[in-house]
Amino acid sequence: MDPVRVALLGCGTVGTEVVRLLHEQAADLTARIGAPLQLVGVAVRRPTRERGDLPVDPALFTTDALGLVKREDVDVVVEVVGGIEPSRTWLVEALRAGKSVVTANKALLAEDGPTLHAAAVDGHADLYYEASVAGAIPLLRPLRESLHGDRITRVTGIVNGTTNFILSAMDESGAGFSEALDEATVLGYAEADPTADVEGFDAAAKAAILASLAFHTRVRAADVYREGITEVSAADVASAKAMGCTIKLLCLAERSGDAVSVRVHPAMIPRTHPLASVGDAFNAVFVEAQAAGQLMFYGPGAGGAPTASAVLGDIVAVARNRLAGVRAASESAYADLRIRPIGEVTTRYHISLDVADRAGVLAAVAGVFADHGVSIATVHQSGRGNEAVLVIVTHRAPDAALAATVAELRGLDIVRSVASVLRVEGE
Amino acid sequence: MDPVRVALLGCGTVGTEVVRLLHEQAADLTARIGAPLQLVGVAVRRPTRERGDLPVDPALFTTDALGLVKREDVDVVVEVVGGIEPSRTWLVEALRAGKSVVTANKALLAEDGPTLHAAAVDGHADLYYEASVAGAIPLLRPLRESLHGDRITRVTGIVNGTTNFILSAMDESGAGFSEALDEATVLGYAEADPTADVEGFDAAAKAAILASLAFHTRVRAADVYREGITEVSAADVASAKAMGCTIKLLCLAERSGDAVSVRVHPAMIPRTHPLASVGDAFNAVFVEAQAAGQLMFYGPGAGGAPTASAVLGDIVAVARNRLAGVRAASESAYADLRIRPIGEVTTRYHISLDVADRAGVLAAVAGVFADHGVSIATVHQSGRGNEAVLVIVTHRAPDAALAATVAELRGLDIVRSVASVLRVEGE
Repeated sequence: MDPVRVALLGCGTVGTEVVRLLHEQAADLTARIGAPLQLVGVAVRRPTRERGDLPVDPALFTTDALGLVKREDVDVVVEVVGGIEPSRTWLVEALRAGKSVVTANKALLAEDGPTLHAAAVDGHADLYYEASVAGAIPLLRPLRESLHGDRITRVTGIVNGTTNFILSAMDESGAGFSEALDEATVLGYAEADPTADVEGFDAAAKAAILASLAFHTRVRAADVYREGITEVSAADVASAKAMGCTIKLLCLAERSGDAVSVRVHPAMIPRTHPLASVGDAFNAVFVEAQAAGQLMFYGPGAGGAPTASAVLGDIVAVARNRLAGVRAASESAYADLRIRPIGEVTTRYHISLDVADRAGVLAAVAGVFADHGVSIATVHQSGRGNEAVLVIVTHRAPDAALAATVAELRGLDIVRSVASVLRVEGE
Repeated sequence: MDPVRVALLGCGTVGTEVVRLLHEQAADLTARIGAPLQLVGVAVRRPTRERGDLPVDPALFTTDALGLVKREDVDVVVEVVGGIEPSRTWLVEALRAGKSVVTANKALLAEDGPTLHAAAVDGHADLYYEASVAGAIPLLRPLRESLHGDRITRVTGIVNGTTNFILSAMDESGAGFSEALDEATVLGYAEADPTADVEGFDAAAKAAILASLAFHTRVRAADVYREGITEVSAADVASAKAMGCTIKLLCLAERSGDAVSVRVHPAMIPRTHPLASVGDAFNAVFVEAQAAGQLMFYGPGAGGAPTASAVLGDIVAVARNRLAGVRAASESAYADLRIRPIGEVTTRYHISLDVADRAGVLAAVAGVFADHGVSIATVHQSGRGNEAVLVIVTHRAPDAALAATVAELRGLDIVRSVASVLRVEGE
């Protein structure tokens, strides 16, 4: 049987593991596909770099990724470089030429997925991207296929390992954000520039991909409301504990009527929620569907070998499709839902205020909530010196009303400071 | 576009929900498939039975399931009747005639899967069975497809909701088996005849299906070593607690070398294991793979709507395949692995002995373990009156050696009784 010929773009942490798995599992892969996989080229920046005992012929390395993609003898292009350009150019070229594409590039899919999907349609080519969200956890295929007879109502995920490691460390040790970030950096869980992780950009890209698949519509990274975890303080974590909660960076995608809301922000969730016990750098995604009920998928969200496992699963799928002469749709966007702005989304807030300790303060604060139509669920008041602390948890209200309430509170004389504002989810 | 015509065999709890979803989600299903689904017949035992407001034309009901399966105007046959016959006859007939089959029938697949798979090959027809294991949890498709680039080493599952409900209740309240079974029966979690659940037959069928898919080999229900939970006592549960463990009915499928072992039995697992917190009637499956690491899938394992969600997902898949003119392989059995007998499987035992309280007892007991080559990890000795209780936990040893050790202990004068023997897993 003729081999299915694979070009690999990128040979870093994930690419190296892809090469290893292609080599070590060769016999099994051949049996599962019905034909052998043959690595015919690896595009890298530095072809002469020392790569230890990597089982690959050095002659396969090239710096000319575009040339590799265009080669007639390439059937499948695997991209594990990341970033928007030049990856987009390579993948569009590959897809238009009818080559199957497997990519782990969440940023590109979330920024400009429609361009890739259109190129896949033009070239009648497969575009698979299981590794782009939640590493090794089989998640996109279940959303695309297993739950296709059901209506998904909400997806709540912990999809960024770095921030989950940091928040777990803060929860366990009481450390502040900076200290926990330092620990994550030392242990290799955070990059030298952690912006994409701690500011929620990575999670927002994954949220866009998840929401698109779950709700059969197009959601781009720019449609995702995003807050990072840099403002989460040790005091917030302590407040969460006092409420029986823990703080997680959540991605939340919800459908109501003909609109979807997609957001990424830190939130308090009850410790009894299945996502609360997801520790360290693990990922988990909680899916709620009308008929299926509540499902959860859990596993390693990053790392070379887990991500390579997802990439290889996709390679097997596209190779089989090639042999069968079929193509799978890479997106389902018939529902074409409106993106609900964050202001319209209803959530609950946990607000901590430092206030003057004098009569009438609670009445004045409560009046501000009432003026904005925000109902208060609980208030805890405690004094220290001539100051008092008010901790208020609201019922569900539109985010705009909550934000306006907080803005007005900030302007009150009797409010010394708004110590923290956190959303409460998972109830 | 011509509709894809569906025949439904069985209209009980699951079938009713399938009918409802076909009706309620009709527009979405059409968009996802590219053609409408049309229900053209429903085979039931009592066509005139009152079915409330079920959205189905009464003229579609028939008692002639075989006649319905043979009809020329049927494209997809959905079987939610269960049992070996006559379901096997219907499904073989359907598959040989080229009709796509979606079934939730774990007993049939585990008892005689090869006959169904062969019929699917003969008729070039799809055979999908996501709903046969773990209800709504998308599990078989990830095993079949997402993890195809990896090597699965072990699958550990809680796949029977009834026994998990009973064991969870025993763990929470300290109740004995009979009492917890009564509660489960009253609440509708156990059937009037609970044998298939409490004796592990249901879990063994699911274990066979999971092992076949995970390891690319054929495992039948008869290959699965099986013990139920009827012998689990309140004292066992208390012993487990004292060890920081809980007792679960596990299905375990392990690959080592060119052999697989598949077994269903109660076992102690540490409370820190992700499966330990799976309560009530929920299911969860923990998958370990070489590259992916540890994954877990969690959700409702039974119930009309969750099972129907899985059935509908399969209906969408086979309908799309029909429109594309392709067929998916229903099994992958190239690996053709040997079934390892339970005696060769290495496990750990937790053994509780009532012994005479006199000098030399521990030495005598320890000697029996040593004679069988079983290494002891921990011993706890406690006295009461002129009796003593020895609780021994072993290191891993072949099950045959452990069983022979226990048999010899039973014959010792100084051993009044072997109060309990439980395997210890998940460490």
